[in-house]
Amino acid sequence: MRRVAVIGVGDTKFGELWDASFRDIGIKAGLAAVEDANISAEKIDALFVGNMSAGRFIEQEHIGALIADYAGLAKDHIPATRVEAAGASGGLALRQGYMAIASGLHDIVVVGGAEKMMDVSDVASAFIQSSAADQEWETELGATFPSLHALIARRHMHEHGTTREQLADVAVKNHRHGSMNPKAQFQKEITRDTVLGSLMVSSPLRMFDCAPSSDGAAAVVLCPLDLAKNYTETPVEIVGSGQASDTLALHHRRDIMTFDATRVAAERAFKMAGVTQKDVDVAEVHDNFTISEILAIEDLGFFKKGEGGKATEDGRTSLDGDVAVNTSGGLKARGDPIGATGLAQAVEIVTQLRGKADKRQVKDASVGLTHNVGGTGATAVVHVFRRV
Amino acid sequence: MRRVAVIGVGDTKFGELWDASFRDIGIKAGLAAVEDANISAEKIDALFVGNMSAGRFIEQEHIGALIADYAGLAKDHIPATRVEAAGASGGLALRQGYMAIASGLHDIVVVGGAEKMMDVSDVASAFIQSSAADQEWETELGATFPSLHALIARRHMHEHGTTREQLADVAVKNHRHGSMNPKAQFQKEITRDTVLGSLMVSSPLRMFDCAPSSDGAAAVVLCPLDLAKNYTETPVEIVGSGQASDTLALHHRRDIMTFDATRVAAERAFKMAGVTQKDVDVAEVHDNFTISEILAIEDLGFFKKGEGGKATEDGRTSLDGDVAVNTSGGLKARGDPIGATGLAQAVEIVTQLRGKADKRQVKDASVGLTHNVGGTGATAVVHVFRRV
Repeated sequence: MRRVAVIGVGDTKFGELWDASFRDIGIKAGLAAVEDANISAEKIDALFVGNMSAGRFIEQEHIGALIADYAGLAKDHIPATRVEAAGASGGLALRQGYMAIASGLHDIVVVGGAEKMMDVSDVASAFIQSSAADQEWETELGATFPSLHALIARRHMHEHGTTREQLADVAVKNHRHGSMNPKAQFQKEITRDTVLGSLMVSSPLRMFDCAPSSDGAAAVVLCPLDLAKNYTETPVEIVGSGQASDTLALHHRRDIMTFDATRVAAERAFKMAGVTQKDVDVAEVHDNFTISEILAIEDLGFFKKGEGGKATEDGRTSLDGDVAVNTSGGLKARGDPIGATGLAQAVEIVTQLRGKADKRQVKDASVGLTHNVGGTGATAVVHVFRRV
Repeated sequence: MRRVAVIGVGDTKFGELWDASFRDIGIKAGLAAVEDANISAEKIDALFVGNMSAGRFIEQEHIGALIADYAGLAKDHIPATRVEAAGASGGLALRQGYMAIASGLHDIVVVGGAEKMMDVSDVASAFIQSSAADQEWETELGATFPSLHALIARRHMHEHGTTREQLADVAVKNHRHGSMNPKAQFQKEITRDTVLGSLMVSSPLRMFDCAPSSDGAAAVVLCPLDLAKNYTETPVEIVGSGQASDTLALHHRRDIMTFDATRVAAERAFKMAGVTQKDVDVAEVHDNFTISEILAIEDLGFFKKGEGGKATEDGRTSLDGDVAVNTSGGLKARGDPIGATGLAQAVEIVTQLRGKADKRQVKDASVGLTHNVGGTGATAVVHVFRRV
């Protein structure tokens, strides 16, 4: 199996991008990554695109060919493939790009993710997003994404004594990180009171416990590790890739406070990478709700089950903590354009491992991790990156 | 790169499956393939699913995890990935499965394709299907899938003297083949008059020039070639895989009578396989319209540009012709449940190369080909198979 490196990264600002179309943002992120990789477009052998629901957000399927076309790659007839697993679409696209190079089938691969969510009403958007859950057993019966996560939060508070304030601390930290990221949707710091005084969405989760809907795109350029030095001074190797599934419906799980898909994907990625949680300096985890980050840092093995809330309160996941979590601002403050999220995580980790994260730079970061989730944990994909 | 073999195939009948849900048919096809491969479910390392538009047909995204869950594979947390490229979704899923094994990442991989199209109205279905074309430049302006193919047919008739009767002959042949396939949606023979007397859809294309909407699913089981003999007496190797893209909108092409994506994907697959068109005994090509099959047999290089109609009329693509094309009945008679189609093609070719195609068996078939198209040729994927 060939070793694989990231040689370029690019992204758009996340947020309400009223002046740009889906194809605009997809191409903008892709071109930025290609420019960053110092390659010409003719070098590109294949394209993978993560996208959850363009069919419903913009009435357009066939997104792989669309992006290849509008990026000017159709003239070389490069293979272009869309990958979907709800919120994990971007991370899974990254994994396909990894496989394409590891297999020897392709050399230079661009992996992008994009979602344009603002072109439909808020109600339509909520409805579309809920199609990541089990339509027959959850959505049809009125379960929404926030309400499913609220169940998890309530149980976690009951079983482990996680406090309402600790949930808020996730949001406070990620908004603080986001304030240092010029690409973040929200760049203002907030306080516990901001969260605790915000609109109730689904008890105990309030507005500031939830990641926003966003437009945005992000992309990376991959190549075999042994060619990477031809293109960049600072290649970052993908040393581990783990993916796992679980039941689509939450009530079928053995324990709703643990995402087994995260746990297993992490085990697979760490084993492949030959590193442990202690080696990880910086991690981007799937904080679509504040409770999700607490689950993530526990299920990834950074903290014991039940101790994620306390660890957050104690600052152990802050920029200068044991492991810096969501330095980009995370889904909470960086934004969550669904299909783009997994790639935005990779962009942040590569930027950190290159030492180019400016005010939010984690000192001497050499090993990073991304954790991308689909639905309420039915898909999880974890990648481990190392500075070469 | 590891060599890859098909060790199991399975499918459902295609048609109007009112008594089965999306998850029912997906699992039925998958289990049939697993049973055919003589493996137990615990052996499965990964799942890839081709599906175009479950988000719109049944309001459910996250199809990979869904199928893994309902097939009972979630307990082992196997990676499950959905791939989409409109009509080419199934063929692209097959290619991802191929890469997963070729890379060394997985050993036993199930690749399935499924689409449930009957649960929406005919008008909604046409609208959903048109999201394979360019939404901003075609669909919004009223161009439908049949009308785009009608433009191609008109031009082909004008430039190359292809006759209305020759178009009909594609349908007549494929219905004849379908009459020998118990899984086909249409198992009745038709005549030229049936086609020429049928309802006009978009001149010159009539009802019997168009593949139907269908429910259905199909699946294959893949493993490394060197392990294949452990599971089956008759492994079939995938010796070539080629994928290519083109502009999404038809009017951006250099020539609307040639699908360059097909031409390039075929070149790539033949080169990898080390065989030529002359070696191919049996081919399943993407005949979503009668004109599409004529384009396909030309662009794949079986016949010169402009001679596809005459070759069909002369019976050179029949069961006993130079190359037997669409022995399953093709999309026209076998049916076209979009995401399943690319896998149904693989199921037919493997069945032929095993010598198990009963009345429609091509004598001494040893090399077969599948050709799966997305949109009006913006994505094409070609696989070459060989009896081991």
